[in-house]
Amino acid sequence: MTSPMTPSGVVTLLTDFGLADGYVAAMKGVLLTRAPGVVIVDNTHLVRRQNVISGSFVLASAARHFPNGTVHVAVVDPGVGTSRAGVAVQTSTGWFVGPDNGLLNKAVGDEPTEVVELESVPGWERERSATFHGRDLFAPAAAHIALGGRLADLGARRRGGALAPLDLPTPKRGPRSVSGEVIHVDGFGNAITNVPREALPTSPSRTVVEVGAVVLHGLVSCYADVPAGTPCALIGSDGLLELAVNLGDASAELGLEPGAPVVCRDAADE
Amino acid sequence: MTSPMTPSGVVTLLTDFGLADGYVAAMKGVLLTRAPGVVIVDNTHLVRRQNVISGSFVLASAARHFPNGTVHVAVVDPGVGTSRAGVAVQTSTGWFVGPDNGLLNKAVGDEPTEVVELESVPGWERERSATFHGRDLFAPAAAHIALGGRLADLGARRRGGALAPLDLPTPKRGPRSVSGEVIHVDGFGNAITNVPREALPTSPSRTVVEVGAVVLHGLVSCYADVPAGTPCALIGSDGLLELAVNLGDASAELGLEPGAPVVCRDAADE
Amino acid sequence: MTSPMTPSGVVTLLTDFGLADGYVAAMKGVLLTRAPGVVIVDNTHLVRRQNVISGSFVLASAARHFPNGTVHVAVVDPGVGTSRAGVAVQTSTGWFVGPDNGLLNKAVGDEPTEVVELESVPGWERERSATFHGRDLFAPAAAHIALGGRLADLGARRRGGALAPLDLPTPKRGPRSVSGEVIHVDGFGNAITNVPREALPTSPSRTVVEVGAVVLHGLVSCYADVPAGTPCALIGSDGLLELAVNLGDASAELGLEPGAPVVCRDAADE
Repeated sequence: MTSPMTPSGVVTLLTDFGLADGYVAAMKGVLLTRAPGVVIVDNTHLVRRQNVISGSFVLASAARHFPNGTVHVAVVDPGVGTSRAGVAVQTSTGWFVGPDNGLLNKAVGDEPTEVVELESVPGWERERSATFHGRDLFAPAAAHIALGGRLADLGARRRGGALAPLDLPTPKRGPRSVSGEVIHVDGFGNAITNVPREALPTSPSRTVVEVGAVVLHGLVSCYADVPAGTPCALIGSDGLLELAVNLGDASAELGLEPGAPVVCRDAADE
Repeated sequence: MTSPMTPSGVVTLLTDFGLADGYVAAMKGVLLTRAPGVVIVDNTHLVRRQNVISGSFVLASAARHFPNGTVHVAVVDPGVGTSRAGVAVQTSTGWFVGPDNGLLNKAVGDEPTEVVELESVPGWERERSATFHGRDLFAPAAAHIALGGRLADLGARRRGGALAPLDLPTPKRGPRSVSGEVIHVDGFGNAITNVPREALPTSPSRTVVEVGAVVLHGLVSCYADVPAGTPCALIGSDGLLELAVNLGDASAELGLEPGAPVVCRDAADE
Repeated sequence: MTSPMTPSGVVTLLTDFGLADGYVAAMKGVLLTRAPGVVIVDNTHLVRRQNVISGSFVLASAARHFPNGTVHVAVVDPGVGTSRAGVAVQTSTGWFVGPDNGLLNKAVGDEPTEVVELESVPGWERERSATFHGRDLFAPAAAHIALGGRLADLGARRRGGALAPLDLPTPKRGPRSVSGEVIHVDGFGNAITNVPREALPTSPSRTVVEVGAVVLHGLVSCYADVPAGTPCALIGSDGLLELAVNLGDASAELGLEPGAPVVCRDAADE
């Protein structure tokens, strides 16, 4: 059993709902009705449609900066209305609520957790909707937790505490190289890979990065270290290898989409 | 006279202002200056430009989920600066503030209401702007109401309490069919119609929907009930007939824009 | 030394980060962790990428409507990671935090101010990031100020209190005319110029505006004063000359981008 944690009163929302409809506002209305005084923060609602991997990256990237005891609701849910479970997860730093399709996994990490399947959320039977679990299931569950309610009230505890796996590629280590891939393209066109700083095969200054037709020698420490329009590689603000073009759009200019391969070597092995 | 209602302290905003300017923030600044502590929630600011019908749908869809006593400000206002009135309306569940051009009507519904024409909003004379009523008229009126101020302070009560009509199409019942149309396309490309569940001519499983060149047999209960890329019809999360493509974009793939006709029949009559 | 001012508890955010990532949410997480209870308001995150002039206009336009004692954080920062300073500025109405690249200047105005270079922000050494000053430098500085902390804790006071200049064009007065240019195109396509009401060479009704191939006779008081689809000139909600097309997009239809020249004359001199 996870130890008690005091709710921070903050609830974050991440979805792929877009911003042109009332769907996100409906979730906020439910939260404010059930948990008056809760502070709601939008993470993003522009996750690439149905892209669970990209959503899992953005969720993990932002969630770690919030106060302990924050409730993070995430809904990128191609399988809404099917048998995939809805879950609430408690970690040592907060709670995560959403579909059990891998979306929460990167934020939850490897630590022991308590996982509850959302089966008895207050009001859920009464207003069941096959298409809008964000409003009718996940927001009420988050309100319950933000008010200090017990996870056990929301459903049965899952033995072992494991979440369904996220189909997230991991970098592969060769004898003297590491192969990874782009997992997220941000709004600036920067291509973020699955290669963490610790996985580099050599020091940043000696690292050679091959990506598409481009070979980059040495990591820089900020975009402006190279002239405008020049590609570069660096460790981004989440500690992951990132491809960028100073004052430009690396995704468009280098043809990098999620899944694009990247290889890191030592300068001597080039 | 409507009975007293306690403000919830929540103010929602819906506009077609977009998100690239400081216009929405200026409204929020006015609200926080005049009513410190008010909780501001964005509904959407991406209503299709000047599209009062689409805005009225989104407003009604989200507003019903907010706490009683919430103030909803809505500004989709092709006639800003003309003689159309600005109004504040009290219903049994909350307040609505905006132009009297039909935008508020679907949310206000048919119940008896108190309607006030905004003629004496504090500060309005002093800072009159012909182009930005959201900031200079509607936000100050909402702040006044959120603080517990009386509607009567804002202007004269309109006798009869009627709002100017919204030019919203209603579904037409034939002897054995119902004809409606698309009134809103959401960010997923789902096409929402003006046909409520109660108007279907037969049971969902026997309902045949004709829309464009497509005929759909039977409503499904969620998008994932059909294979990826397949069109389907269902009752959406607002209780209205909706056309969708599982994991796709019904608006683009079926050519559905607001105004597109849809006919529902019983399977036996096809 | 500027006189003491009580924080309003409100922090606004303006960036060019876009809305599809977790970057803005990370800043909010830092703010809520360090200054629980602070009210965070988004100005816009869709400033044209790296466009400091447009960002400075939007910041100034919205900031003046917020309560005294508000902290405004702004990050449009092509030079992040270079030697440009990060600053915190106190004015008679609030605080401004961001890069010292001109972005803050229009909001700060000409009044005497206290300027501090951000050198000793709590936590900055520990988590230094070359690419994300918004999260690691400016948000912590804003949290410190919002809690009532002293500017002097954040770094050395700059003698003279001057900010690096913004390369903002000013209108030029001829003997009987005024020449200016478009400085911002808003989301409706309205083209806002650098010509304030006070700089017009004659009364609004006698003012002739030449812009591109179009000549407009007399300013109108609101968009709807001209028929749909017709161009017009008016004084916009920020007191600046603005070119618009009623129910249309002046930027697209008249070919107006930032930098486009505009000339105002008296009707008699045409």
